[in-house]
Amino acid sequence: MEGQLIATYRVVASAEQISAVARAIAIEQTAEVNEPLCATPPVSDRVVGRVEDIEPDGPDAFKVVIAYNAEVLAGEISQLFSVLFGNISLKSGIRLVAISASGLSLTDFPGPLHGIDGLRELVGATDEPRRPLLFGAAKPMGRSVAELAGYVHDLALGGLDYIKDDHGITDQGFAPFEQRVLACCSAVERANAKSGRKARYVPCVNAPLDQILDRARFALSAGAGGLLVSPLVVGMSAPRVLSSVTGLPVLAHPAMAGVYYSSPDHGIASDVVLGSLFRLAGADAVIFPGFGGRFPFTKQRCAAIDRALKVDMGGRATSLPVPAGGLTLDVVPEASAVFGRDVGFLIGSALYEMSPDLVANARHFSALTQSCVNVESH
Amino acid sequence: MEGQLIATYRVVASAEQISAVARAIAIEQTAEVNEPLCATPPVSDRVVGRVEDIEPDGPDAFKVVIAYNAEVLAGEISQLFSVLFGNISLKSGIRLVAISASGLSLTDFPGPLHGIDGLRELVGATDEPRRPLLFGAAKPMGRSVAELAGYVHDLALGGLDYIKDDHGITDQGFAPFEQRVLACCSAVERANAKSGRKARYVPCVNAPLDQILDRARFALSAGAGGLLVSPLVVGMSAPRVLSSVTGLPVLAHPAMAGVYYSSPDHGIASDVVLGSLFRLAGADAVIFPGFGGRFPFTKQRCAAIDRALKVDMGGRATSLPVPAGGLTLDVVPEASAVFGRDVGFLIGSALYEMSPDLVANARHFSALTQSCVNVESH
Repeated sequence: MEGQLIATYRVVASAEQISAVARAIAIEQTAEVNEPLCATPPVSDRVVGRVEDIEPDGPDAFKVVIAYNAEVLAGEISQLFSVLFGNISLKSGIRLVAISASGLSLTDFPGPLHGIDGLRELVGATDEPRRPLLFGAAKPMGRSVAELAGYVHDLALGGLDYIKDDHGITDQGFAPFEQRVLACCSAVERANAKSGRKARYVPCVNAPLDQILDRARFALSAGAGGLLVSPLVVGMSAPRVLSSVTGLPVLAHPAMAGVYYSSPDHGIASDVVLGSLFRLAGADAVIFPGFGGRFPFTKQRCAAIDRALKVDMGGRATSLPVPAGGLTLDVVPEASAVFGRDVGFLIGSALYEMSPDLVANARHFSALTQSCVNVESH
Repeated sequence: MEGQLIATYRVVASAEQISAVARAIAIEQTAEVNEPLCATPPVSDRVVGRVEDIEPDGPDAFKVVIAYNAEVLAGEISQLFSVLFGNISLKSGIRLVAISASGLSLTDFPGPLHGIDGLRELVGATDEPRRPLLFGAAKPMGRSVAELAGYVHDLALGGLDYIKDDHGITDQGFAPFEQRVLACCSAVERANAKSGRKARYVPCVNAPLDQILDRARFALSAGAGGLLVSPLVVGMSAPRVLSSVTGLPVLAHPAMAGVYYSSPDHGIASDVVLGSLFRLAGADAVIFPGFGGRFPFTKQRCAAIDRALKVDMGGRATSLPVPAGGLTLDVVPEASAVFGRDVGFLIGSALYEMSPDLVANARHFSALTQSCVNVESH
């Protein structure tokens, strides 16, 4: 295990305290003992994080850069997540504001299997000028298997690329997992046969840990086109484990992410948890609250996530930003300006509300995004 | 799936807004659509949460009680966690302050397999007056398999009941998982043969999701006496899945918990996430920051967690509170007053710092806690 993970924390502390606080973080996240017990090798030189830089960042606050040895991470994304913020989450005044994983080996932490280019290829959306990918959802919970499969069919026929389950639709009696997946895979196939397109159905595999892989394998065998998972609910390792095991692209859902960034002085910045970390964890696409939807999320935060998903990360694939959360079609032109062409728009409820004709609604959505591309490219 | 989960949120909102905000939470966490799409059965009556009560709670704040149908939870603790706070984590001004799971079936959500009584029986600590259970840790990361096994042996010989790995010691090259578990199981056995006691070694099984169960099964076959896991890192379903699969008791580690309660107006209260939820998730013992240690945690918060772990929960077993985090022996008498007799004291670093003789240090710790019991019972 070679290389290192670089973490930048914003720490609230006085000038007198900051060196000691920085050192305490570096120890807390690794050796987790008092100073005397980490004074000798290999604990001192290979286990404890190295404080590489401390710079003022406003009154009584500092940016602290800590390098963690790859040896400590054991090639496990769960351990990497824990090292970045596990124990210090229990302290206060510490916010993880940036990470760099470029120095970690691609074997240990490969990132997305498909990435943006792969997601485009899988649905045949590689033509220039590149168009946004279109995402929809079969919903709400309570609908029967036949109803949900009908929605998947109509959204696919209307021109959407990826049609996912809601993240809360798991294995309820309303639409049990296996029946639902079989019916929705078959529905998307029928739609594709009519349209000549390559739309894909993406079932939700959120489940207790002894069932996730079984559901993913079932989905693969049924012909699913991707997997949806909530990494902060079922574990940060889920995205890459799921794509490695099945070969399918993985969409990461942001459930529970808000607690990480809700406190201004503590936690993990939204672009780190939903951007850098979800990408490093192997999410091919990341769903997050788009500005202009029903969640309080700014354009700046969206832009920061977009950057984190696409910036150079030591040769890892990029991840597709998928703004969502009550977005309406009105937001599409402005969102295109923020995210550029490599974006997925996820329109859920709004597509059901426009008219009773879901195929027509999806066609309208598709035409609107295409017209944004055409305007841009003239 | 019968029964319901009752959640109480403290919501920041004006008197004019609160009804709409409460209803929005009940929809967001279940059907996740705009009103028109959840107006008809079964979405309206079986899927969307029911707002059961709204009471003022200070200026511009209210306590909102929402009942979620068990049908929505699908018998999955991952889904239950997501329903309680997944999407609304992305909003602001909402804090989950209490849950009641008494109305959920024990088959769907059984809670701890062993609980406090089971943990006592496993180490032969059932005599009256009941004494605190004693926990130690083999640490820090960087020590070799032989060194760690030596610590386990000495701590067991000195009178500790459960000796766990650090939560960050997973499968690093310093002490690879399988070698470490074999050596530490053997060490604790040798110590028990000398002492006639029943100390147990508790390896850490934090790992990517495709490896956790393998590690747990390996630990079982090697003779481990329990499993340590960080539910907020590897998934909330981990505790009960691990105990069901192996029969071993599970210690839950609080890594990452602080982000849930760091914001006063948003997130999940510490006694809910570390108390009610970890217990419902099946943790037989819950480690959390004790007051007087190196984490900023009050006596009140500790007492609230203690209550949540022991209060009636529809027939589920209780969970053992295990205050930790840089505790020293000085805290033991005061902590006994807060937690009563059913408590586990986890002393990590401090046991290594007292003197070079780990057996003697453990004996001192054991004698001190026993003397607290004796004082109390006279």
